[in-house]
Amino acid sequence: MADTTASATRPPALALEELHASLTDPVLDAMNFLNEVVARFPDALSFAPGRPFEGTFETEDLSRYLRAYTDHLEHGLGWSRDRVRTQLFQYGRTNGIIHELIARTLANDERIEVSPEAVVVTTGCQEAMLLTLRALFARPEDTLLVSSPCYVGVTGAARLLDIAIRPVPEGADGPDPDAVLAAVRHTRRSGGRPRALYLVPDFANPSGASMTVAARERLLEIAAQEDLLILEDDPYGFFVRTGSARPTLKSMDRERRVLHLGSFAKTALPGARVGYVVADQEVIGPGGRRSLLADELSKIKSMTTVNTSAISQAVIGGLLVESDCRLREANAGAVAYYRTNLDTLLGELERHFPAERRKALGVSWNEPDGGFFLVVDVPFRADHKALEDSARNYGVLWTPMGDFYLDGGGDHQLRLSCSALGPEDITEGVRRLARFVEARAARTSE
Amino acid sequence: MADTTASATRPPALALEELHASLTDPVLDAMNFLNEVVARFPDALSFAPGRPFEGTFETEDLSRYLRAYTDHLEHGLGWSRDRVRTQLFQYGRTNGIIHELIARTLANDERIEVSPEAVVVTTGCQEAMLLTLRALFARPEDTLLVSSPCYVGVTGAARLLDIAIRPVPEGADGPDPDAVLAAVRHTRRSGGRPRALYLVPDFANPSGASMTVAARERLLEIAAQEDLLILEDDPYGFFVRTGSARPTLKSMDRERRVLHLGSFAKTALPGARVGYVVADQEVIGPGGRRSLLADELSKIKSMTTVNTSAISQAVIGGLLVESDCRLREANAGAVAYYRTNLDTLLGELERHFPAERRKALGVSWNEPDGGFFLVVDVPFRADHKALEDSARNYGVLWTPMGDFYLDGGGDHQLRLSCSALGPEDITEGVRRLARFVEARAARTSE
Repeated sequence: MADTTASATRPPALALEELHASLTDPVLDAMNFLNEVVARFPDALSFAPGRPFEGTFETEDLSRYLRAYTDHLEHGLGWSRDRVRTQLFQYGRTNGIIHELIARTLANDERIEVSPEAVVVTTGCQEAMLLTLRALFARPEDTLLVSSPCYVGVTGAARLLDIAIRPVPEGADGPDPDAVLAAVRHTRRSGGRPRALYLVPDFANPSGASMTVAARERLLEIAAQEDLLILEDDPYGFFVRTGSARPTLKSMDRERRVLHLGSFAKTALPGARVGYVVADQEVIGPGGRRSLLADELSKIKSMTTVNTSAISQAVIGGLLVESDCRLREANAGAVAYYRTNLDTLLGELERHFPAERRKALGVSWNEPDGGFFLVVDVPFRADHKALEDSARNYGVLWTPMGDFYLDGGGDHQLRLSCSALGPEDITEGVRRLARFVEARAARTSE
Repeated sequence: MADTTASATRPPALALEELHASLTDPVLDAMNFLNEVVARFPDALSFAPGRPFEGTFETEDLSRYLRAYTDHLEHGLGWSRDRVRTQLFQYGRTNGIIHELIARTLANDERIEVSPEAVVVTTGCQEAMLLTLRALFARPEDTLLVSSPCYVGVTGAARLLDIAIRPVPEGADGPDPDAVLAAVRHTRRSGGRPRALYLVPDFANPSGASMTVAARERLLEIAAQEDLLILEDDPYGFFVRTGSARPTLKSMDRERRVLHLGSFAKTALPGARVGYVVADQEVIGPGGRRSLLADELSKIKSMTTVNTSAISQAVIGGLLVESDCRLREANAGAVAYYRTNLDTLLGELERHFPAERRKALGVSWNEPDGGFFLVVDVPFRADHKALEDSARNYGVLWTPMGDFYLDGGGDHQLRLSCSALGPEDITEGVRRLARFVEARAARTSE
């Protein structure tokens, strides 16, 4: 037994400071703290996690999706049973086996028309970020711009690869093209090379903000002018609360400046861990040899996970086949569900903090057009200590916004997610949150 | 449509030389060339791929395994149906959900006794390598020693992370402790810090060689003395041809010097993409806070793939439950199959190249005690050109050994894998190989 030898001198330990610097990134500690708080107060109502609603899923669906996919191969494409077996059992195509179904779905849902060869199927969108960053960032001066406040997944992946990051402050309408331009120029002046910008144009995590169509057009102009690539992440675009869905940057992209990152975690199921990146950029190698950026990403993927699980791809593939590659329509129920939730959240905030009251307190919030998240400004420090107080004494959890800023900021803001709670819990949760905010505000103004 | 705009100026292309250096690693080109040759000569008999035999798998098994796993949760552990549903649908524990089943299997099969908390479930063993390398290698001088010739997965992952690599020449009995000691000292003298050694102690890929038990003991002593970690990768250990299985380094590890990397790709199915790493080392952080290295790897994993597919884990979990966590016994059929294959391969080589003949030609090969691979020494350059000749004119494929060496070597060696062909194809394949070798040898000696 390795654990308990009789003569055991205590085995030597490793020093954390000798391990890679990403392990001491404060964001990781923040995330750990959040998970810990969630675990310590299991009875608290939680506006913290961005996890999707699972109410329409049944365990048995998995076998049905698998069958839908294998039926598609056998009867739709005329594959032999042996070939189907090999597809599910064996090592396979590095860039995935459901790239054609995904390309068709993107054409139907987003009017993104790309060759299936440009689609890299990944182990969740997180691997898509990792591959993309690894391929594009080669030199110490190569700098990743991120719309800030920013999703921690991309900054975390950048830390793993020791990539320099520059935050670009978001405006009320999300990522701001003029701020991007300023950041590009500032990066160049300080010796960096702005290589790509990461953003979530629709209902961003964490802010909930969305870009106008005009801002999207302007951003694409700036990308062309400044030779900047755009990493567009769009996990929430289906979930419109009010108005209509806006075109993705990729669907507007005439110069292949945009890499489009996608996820089935919110529109299908997170447990499958299937995401993708559309990388239709051309790459020129020695002797003028041309390849797709997707082919280059494939080389990286062969060194991260080799393949995305064929079983997971088959499950997602079956789900796409069942929906005739129209995932937006298949998500009509989920869209309605999240719309009700976000409407309920906004309505309850309004009810507990009517205009006069919120003015008196110094409380406000944004009203996202969709998605899972909104941000509340509060008149006290919404830090980890406040969160612990909220969980322990008021039975409600949320996420401190400060954790999403790279350069300070957000310390009087909290993020509320409405994806994982139903309307009744949201109503009760906002009641608790209101009590907490009132008490804290009173204590702060004392 | 992004692809075909009317006014289309040709979109700007990316220069390969501006992308990350790992993309121009010659090993990647070599792997691409191999895949290309395999694709161009689909009718050739191929001793190239190390893919496992899939004859005992049926597509329907997947649903049965899923049910075995959910039955285990519901009836074995008393979980509610809702909790089971959440387990399969939702984001979950970063380090995996079948860690307890894996820990039990390791205890049964390998006498590796570790807490389930020390097991990190990964998206194939490749991700286990990536996480481990990322955590342990922090500074430019941190050097990875690899037993050479070496599996390209680990050197590829190291390239992605810009980690310095030093090859340690393998002996006839595999990784050689004295050569490791010499490499450690040489690395230190040249300003590097030898951080860890990667090796495959049993039936290595590509050489087929295995370490004696005495060499394993000696290597553990050296690791303790030189403060070196050992990354033990053991995908083939079950597949003994002759003699009996030897203890893994991890089962002999009294000082937690060994990280044990594992894969279900060869013992279950590659398509699931489930692997793991046992990382029971202690880590000391600020203020003396102690954690397991597995916990630190979890932080990295949250930035690479977030979770290993719950569906894939459920499939492997079901397979473990069905086998009562005794995977070695469950693999009895596969063990016999690969034994027959390797025996057939050795027998046919002997038949076509009897002692006199091989002496005359300058041909020889090793006789591995198990696994998928053996190496043939030939009297001509076994390079990509020779491979192409072999495929086109003799209908047989193999892998040039030169691709597995980091510092030259292996240019008169070829690797034969016997895992993917049955005995009849092996017999015919060796007949073709013999014709090829005879012809090349004749041409070389002209």
